[in-house]
Amino acid sequence: MEAKTAESTKAIMTEIVLPNDTNTLGNLMGGRLLHLMDICSAISAHRCSKRMVVTASVNNVSFASPIKLGDIITLESKVTRTFNSSMEILIQVFVEDHRTGKKTLSNNAYYTFVAVDQIGTPIEVPDVTQETEAEKLQFEGALRRRQLSLILAGKMKASDATELKKLFN
Amino acid sequence: MEAKTAESTKAIMTEIVLPNDTNTLGNLMGGRLLHLMDICSAISAHRCSKRMVVTASVNNVSFASPIKLGDIITLESKVTRTFNSSMEILIQVFVEDHRTGKKTLSNNAYYTFVAVDQIGTPIEVPDVTQETEAEKLQFEGALRRRQLSLILAGKMKASDATELKKLFN
Amino acid sequence: MEAKTAESTKAIMTEIVLPNDTNTLGNLMGGRLLHLMDICSAISAHRCSKRMVVTASVNNVSFASPIKLGDIITLESKVTRTFNSSMEILIQVFVEDHRTGKKTLSNNAYYTFVAVDQIGTPIEVPDVTQETEAEKLQFEGALRRRQLSLILAGKMKASDATELKKLFN
Amino acid sequence: MEAKTAESTKAIMTEIVLPNDTNTLGNLMGGRLLHLMDICSAISAHRCSKRMVVTASVNNVSFASPIKLGDIITLESKVTRTFNSSMEILIQVFVEDHRTGKKTLSNNAYYTFVAVDQIGTPIEVPDVTQETEAEKLQFEGALRRRQLSLILAGKMKASDATELKKLFN
Amino acid sequence: MEAKTAESTKAIMTEIVLPNDTNTLGNLMGGRLLHLMDICSAISAHRCSKRMVVTASVNNVSFASPIKLGDIITLESKVTRTFNSSMEILIQVFVEDHRTGKKTLSNNAYYTFVAVDQIGTPIEVPDVTQETEAEKLQFEGALRRRQLSLILAGKMKASDATELKKLFN
Amino acid sequence: MEAKTAESTKAIMTEIVLPNDTNTLGNLMGGRLLHLMDICSAISAHRCSKRMVVTASVNNVSFASPIKLGDIITLESKVTRTFNSSMEILIQVFVEDHRTGKKTLSNNAYYTFVAVDQIGTPIEVPDVTQETEAEKLQFEGALRRRQLSLILAGKMKASDATELKKLFN
Repeated sequence: MEAKTAESTKAIMTEIVLPNDTNTLGNLMGGRLLHLMDICSAISAHRCSKRMVVTASVNNVSFASPIKLGDIITLESKVTRTFNSSMEILIQVFVEDHRTGKKTLSNNAYYTFVAVDQIGTPIEVPDVTQETEAEKLQFEGALRRRQLSLILAGKMKASDATELKKLFN
Repeated sequence: MEAKTAESTKAIMTEIVLPNDTNTLGNLMGGRLLHLMDICSAISAHRCSKRMVVTASVNNVSFASPIKLGDIITLESKVTRTFNSSMEILIQVFVEDHRTGKKTLSNNAYYTFVAVDQIGTPIEVPDVTQETEAEKLQFEGALRRRQLSLILAGKMKASDATELKKLFN
Repeated sequence: MEAKTAESTKAIMTEIVLPNDTNTLGNLMGGRLLHLMDICSAISAHRCSKRMVVTASVNNVSFASPIKLGDIITLESKVTRTFNSSMEILIQVFVEDHRTGKKTLSNNAYYTFVAVDQIGTPIEVPDVTQETEAEKLQFEGALRRRQLSLILAGKMKASDATELKKLFN
Repeated sequence: MEAKTAESTKAIMTEIVLPNDTNTLGNLMGGRLLHLMDICSAISAHRCSKRMVVTASVNNVSFASPIKLGDIITLESKVTRTFNSSMEILIQVFVEDHRTGKKTLSNNAYYTFVAVDQIGTPIEVPDVTQETEAEKLQFEGALRRRQLSLILAGKMKASDATELKKLFN
Repeated sequence: MEAKTAESTKAIMTEIVLPNDTNTLGNLMGGRLLHLMDICSAISAHRCSKRMVVTASVNNVSFASPIKLGDIITLESKVTRTFNSSMEILIQVFVEDHRTGKKTLSNNAYYTFVAVDQIGTPIEVPDVTQETEAEKLQFEGALRRRQLSLILAGKMKASDATELKKLFN
Repeated sequence: MEAKTAESTKAIMTEIVLPNDTNTLGNLMGGRLLHLMDICSAISAHRCSKRMVVTASVNNVSFASPIKLGDIITLESKVTRTFNSSMEILIQVFVEDHRTGKKTLSNNAYYTFVAVDQIGTPIEVPDVTQETEAEKLQFEGALRRRQLSLILAGKMKASDATELKKLFN
């Protein structure tokens, strides 16, 4: 199975925040953004695997500053690393300044998707190769985040999480 | 500020999976469930703080078995612990067997909300007291999960994460 | 066919009133609430019959005080009585006070569902047994409401509505 | 206040049943139709009162034969009679045969709306005059249905329901 | 294949502008109206052809004055002329004055639909006959608009557009 | 007012076709795509003008081959030319082959937006400069399309449409 470049899995979504996306403060609701990030990262996962993909886990989503009604947001996602049938995706959300057009990073999240066949059985996905420094950093972090997920899900012992342990020494 | 019991923050949502909630395999899409879990946990956070609440972070969401079109799902959420103006909420999603009515745990997630005033400034929330063993376990884990979030967000040094370090020794 | 307790058919839905649910006065629209009540009572009907269920009629829905944008509402439904393949369901809608958390009854409605098989043919449903005084009152009223529906639909002569006639003597 | 003709309050809505409007049998869900009927009858109530209107009650909705995905449905509503600030509206739903285009009556419902001012206080509405036999029949039945609603809501004694009592003698 | 009258293809849709239909100025968004006009004209095309219909092109939609949140709009559509398997539909959008109930023409558009069979192959549709002067004018203009579309799509040479050339002499 | 490059107004939207976006043939409905194209081109218009923008007209939208449920579509839009307060935008819709990832042009459309201030008055927008051959071709065609629109709307005499007349000689 031929490897893909991380860049070839990139997906871009641009959206305008509409009234029904907002809470009573007039800000984009977290749940709506989680939904949009899921769709965007599913597209990256599909571009990597060329298969049907299903969400396996979500981690480390943080919501910094509020996004307002009428704001234009851009979501950008890329596969950081693959493990057999699963793919970790980094999604970044940018908000555009109305006057200058300058985009500011507003949110960061990691979603994991699994490629499946028509009856839902996981199937192997290609490796993803890194070209930029940023992509390489994400690639390295992916193993650490995966070990963390496995520990939190009770599927790995902390003592076996070689990558993760380095953080605490 | 008077403490609340964890039980008093409990929220229950029951939903039927409709066609537009599903992917091309006929399964509930991850993004839609993330959206529902956000609404359910926002209600718990509101019941704890009696204030407007905004999503601050999402962690450790895992999607086990697929949920099908037409399935009845029940979401249950409770505040596990509060930190100044933030509240960690545990949400559990159950799927109901069509013939027996038996509910099976399908998903688990932790959402963190912040209570804010009318202009969005964080404000203090009451403590939450635990009555059951399960609630006590969640309370203890909350500090560990918080330290983990802070480290991953670059806001705490791993060496200061006293609770977390215990896991790796 | 084994009888079910009314309690075992109970369904609870909690919702936040979102912008698109409201009219130009900023109040929850009646049509949206009718929709939510239909979903909630369908879940009760399903829990009673363990079958696919379809709405057969709606009666005596009254909208008392307006429900506001951002309000948390709780819908609670229970099967009151069954007749062959049909089930009458009582749905109650509560609104939560933002500061005290106190829930006030806002709406009351009766929906009737029919259990059907895969091709839509009505099939028998179990009896429902009552444990509380409130459940017993609802059980008794159900026959009266049913006779009323049949008369209004031209399927029963008023003179045959034994239960109903008592009201007017 | 000048009376309106019933005909001048007529509203027509045509809709195609879309996937998300349907249940797992592929039929239009009752809750969705209740929502559409609410919008249609609100338009009739507005055309009668030229005021903001809110749903006050819903009665005697019956769902006869299932309506299928892709079906074209036509909703037609008219004010039958007014009482101070409230208006009773009859809504009829027709389904169109795909080949012949023939419309068949599928559902019948009565909604009651109240006209309100900007702060939600009920305000008087004009009378509605009848021109056809069908309109006159509806006008007469309206008082009976109103007495029934008031009795069921506990706001009138059955013994005072002069119109209704005739039915049972 | 028996001809239909233009009148028999008429479709009427009445809608209330809801919060999520509006932009940050509180006006109905163009995209939402384009969607509604597509549904309305699809119904006219279906009434003409009694077949499944798909949008083929959209032309000459102009948005005059803004339509506001809470406004009642009426869409009216009719087939103007058919060409083998395609049908041109004129849609008009009217806005209703809140106090007088007077309807003002707000938008005009031409949609073209094609009738298709179950696998999507175009199939012949009946002719449409005109009874009013307005219908006859639309019928004549249809050929001109069609030639224009074909030229703009590069499927016809301007020099062959006999009807259109008359405009420029 | 400083000119913008056409490239700086580019907007990209990626979407997955969901069940409710489709007709009974399982294809993306035209009305839904018109809605998405409106949002995408509004973003381009905003990036050009840095102002609130409203749809003024839509022209020459053609729907070639059907787009299927589950397909990934990419919308790309750019301002082609500006006229005082109005901006013409070209939107292109691409469908992605599930196995090869190859994108095929599926639709083409021209939308015109007007920049407005807070009370809806049109305001001047900057010029747009062209860098590529494709951009220059679109720039030239824009005047022709504008004259055509004005003639069809009865706001210009055909004999004054200097650019357009060249087509017919």
